[in-house]
Amino acid sequence: MKISLLAIGDELLKGETQDLNLYWLGKFLRTVGHQLKTSVFCGDSIEQINNSIDNLITNQSPDLIIISGGLGPTIDDVTKKSLSKLLGETLEESEKAKSMVEEHYQRFGKKWSPELNFYHLIPKSVTPINNPTGLAPGLFSTYKNTSIICAPGVPKEFKTMVKEFFHGHYREKINPQTDRLYIKTRGVPEEKIFNEIAPKLWGELSNFGRVSSYPRLTGIDILIDQIDSDNIEKIKDLPSVKLLTPYTWQVGNQSLEEFIINKLKEKGLTVATAESCTGGLVASGLTDVSGSSEVFIGGIVSYSNDIKMDELEVSPIDIEKYGAVSEEVVKQMAKGVREKYDVDISVSTSGIAGPGGGSTEKPVGTIAVGVSFKSGSFSKIYQLRNEGRKKTKNRFVACALLSLLNFIEKIDQ
Amino acid sequence: MKISLLAIGDELLKGETQDLNLYWLGKFLRTVGHQLKTSVFCGDSIEQINNSIDNLITNQSPDLIIISGGLGPTIDDVTKKSLSKLLGETLEESEKAKSMVEEHYQRFGKKWSPELNFYHLIPKSVTPINNPTGLAPGLFSTYKNTSIICAPGVPKEFKTMVKEFFHGHYREKINPQTDRLYIKTRGVPEEKIFNEIAPKLWGELSNFGRVSSYPRLTGIDILIDQIDSDNIEKIKDLPSVKLLTPYTWQVGNQSLEEFIINKLKEKGLTVATAESCTGGLVASGLTDVSGSSEVFIGGIVSYSNDIKMDELEVSPIDIEKYGAVSEEVVKQMAKGVREKYDVDISVSTSGIAGPGGGSTEKPVGTIAVGVSFKSGSFSKIYQLRNEGRKKTKNRFVACALLSLLNFIEKIDQ
Repeated sequence: MKISLLAIGDELLKGETQDLNLYWLGKFLRTVGHQLKTSVFCGDSIEQINNSIDNLITNQSPDLIIISGGLGPTIDDVTKKSLSKLLGETLEESEKAKSMVEEHYQRFGKKWSPELNFYHLIPKSVTPINNPTGLAPGLFSTYKNTSIICAPGVPKEFKTMVKEFFHGHYREKINPQTDRLYIKTRGVPEEKIFNEIAPKLWGELSNFGRVSSYPRLTGIDILIDQIDSDNIEKIKDLPSVKLLTPYTWQVGNQSLEEFIINKLKEKGLTVATAESCTGGLVASGLTDVSGSSEVFIGGIVSYSNDIKMDELEVSPIDIEKYGAVSEEVVKQMAKGVREKYDVDISVSTSGIAGPGGGSTEKPVGTIAVGVSFKSGSFSKIYQLRNEGRKKTKNRFVACALLSLLNFIEKIDQ
Repeated sequence: MKISLLAIGDELLKGETQDLNLYWLGKFLRTVGHQLKTSVFCGDSIEQINNSIDNLITNQSPDLIIISGGLGPTIDDVTKKSLSKLLGETLEESEKAKSMVEEHYQRFGKKWSPELNFYHLIPKSVTPINNPTGLAPGLFSTYKNTSIICAPGVPKEFKTMVKEFFHGHYREKINPQTDRLYIKTRGVPEEKIFNEIAPKLWGELSNFGRVSSYPRLTGIDILIDQIDSDNIEKIKDLPSVKLLTPYTWQVGNQSLEEFIINKLKEKGLTVATAESCTGGLVASGLTDVSGSSEVFIGGIVSYSNDIKMDELEVSPIDIEKYGAVSEEVVKQMAKGVREKYDVDISVSTSGIAGPGGGSTEKPVGTIAVGVSFKSGSFSKIYQLRNEGRKKTKNRFVACALLSLLNFIEKIDQ
């Protein structure tokens, strides 16, 4: 089945709203055995919407177009009007749509009336679709032999509607799921992997599925997609995959945070954080993992030097002597939180996320990471790319978590 | 000037990589007085890329197509081959490209050689573009009277290349910047704003620019775009805008975190956080603001009840009696961190982000927020939408920050 996404909204083209539906839909369609062929983004205008639909049908001949956005109550929501024009049908009161809308409002404890909006009006040949998490119904239609679903642009509503549609109306079109596997590396560039370390890797992997390579904050991820689940162990044993082992932190599909939380659980270790430059984002990342409370006890965001000294027992003399961004200071921060929170292992960060605060010796992008354990510690300064404050913070987090993982892996327990 | 984006990459259609370039480009083009007309996403195949280019030209007649992705060294990077086929020119060694690549490698302290990749080969009529932050050169070409820029898909490289191109080659096409203004509301649905509270709002605002309305985690944001800067004060004084005042937390363009940090600076207040369910994300959000260290001192992530009791002086009896997610507990958490870190004001969170941990009385999405100040405090339980752990955490953060802002605004200082 050929599927295209048409995402409607000026906000998506003006940099007002970061689109999330394309990413989610791409992921979701794979779970039902389909793949998104193409996606088009256009503005809130009837002309642009209808041109986009016609061009998609002419050039891609999709079986299904999924449209997101433009179903709300405001003046710039014109998806329904566009469909009405495209089909040559006026908007008419639909009993089915009306009772659906009344139900949607009831679900939120509210009462619908026709003065509020025109949710009850739809073109004659169009079927309204239930919206389990919002107010506006979706629309299902057929135009030039192409099925069209219109769903709201709000990610939550888009997701539930598309999911329900596939598992309901399109049930018979769901294919058995194929598998995928990542080889997740750190500290090695793409070219070195494929030219020096394992020149046969791409070819060997391609025998099992579609290969692609993605630079992530943690390093290069190599994905093998559309593989038979039975082949996963065979892939892990490939000679080229073995060659890459010294640079690989995981052959599997977990996020770095999940992987760390699971390693800690396996080894029966509790963890805490002491963060300066990352401002709580390391702790937040770890607690994104459901069930992390079994091992993650807590953390301290020691943004000011006073907190570093008063709460983490960092020596004022060392702050003065080495600076807050130093191996000495992060070592003491990590030790401080480990002892104070009575945990087995801890990680600490202190760095310069910018835009200000950099120097020649320690430019923006410099981070000191510390790890403390009862029988040993680690600390190191890294120079990472400065890519703006937020992105640099994310790089810092990846760097700190990889350092923590490195250390955990060496613990025999 | 009509501009389209063609984003290339299987990873974008498979839900492997969240696209960030469309969002950035939309924002950037507005700063140089242009607007993105449309965007198309297609997979890593020569046929799909060239069909997309031809269709864009036929259907949209853009002056400029910006292509992102497919310039790297791996087998699935086929943008250059596509262009070569489209132009009917073979890939040839280019002296200009070669010296550019050598320079790029030198910049990273590495030496380039032709065994590494084919970065030095380009079609004859194509001009290589300098890549200030990466290795692969970009490409500039003209096809069917349409200018085409090919830039790497890596956001950092895409951004710097597109920026440099506009400020260099397209300098004369940069238009004077127009302004924009947000009316940022909280706690009121879109329909109520436009139907009940201020029915004339959309019309009145439309006299000054293009109006749109966006649901955010904090509430509904109304944007007036493409306005003359001189009219900003007039917009603020419109009768309809005044009617909305009780629901408006800002008429202006700052993020919630920036707005709070600036309010704290204005009032000379220092702040700290005590977080359970948000795991450090409130602190991280506040420290995303450059210069936040002037007012943000630090925070405690008290994930376990032990840390709540030992570090924040929360009463074990109250945890037992009311539960960790309760007004009593967050009140004590906020007071605890305020006193311990010796700050003027503090905010605390304790909630159920899911997927586990919910009950009938306190389902997933329940959050207790506390604010503590020397002369008063606030605490309240909210039931927010459960939209998956991460999204729910983000809702929790917005809720906590709005509560903090609410309190700060009432402080006379």
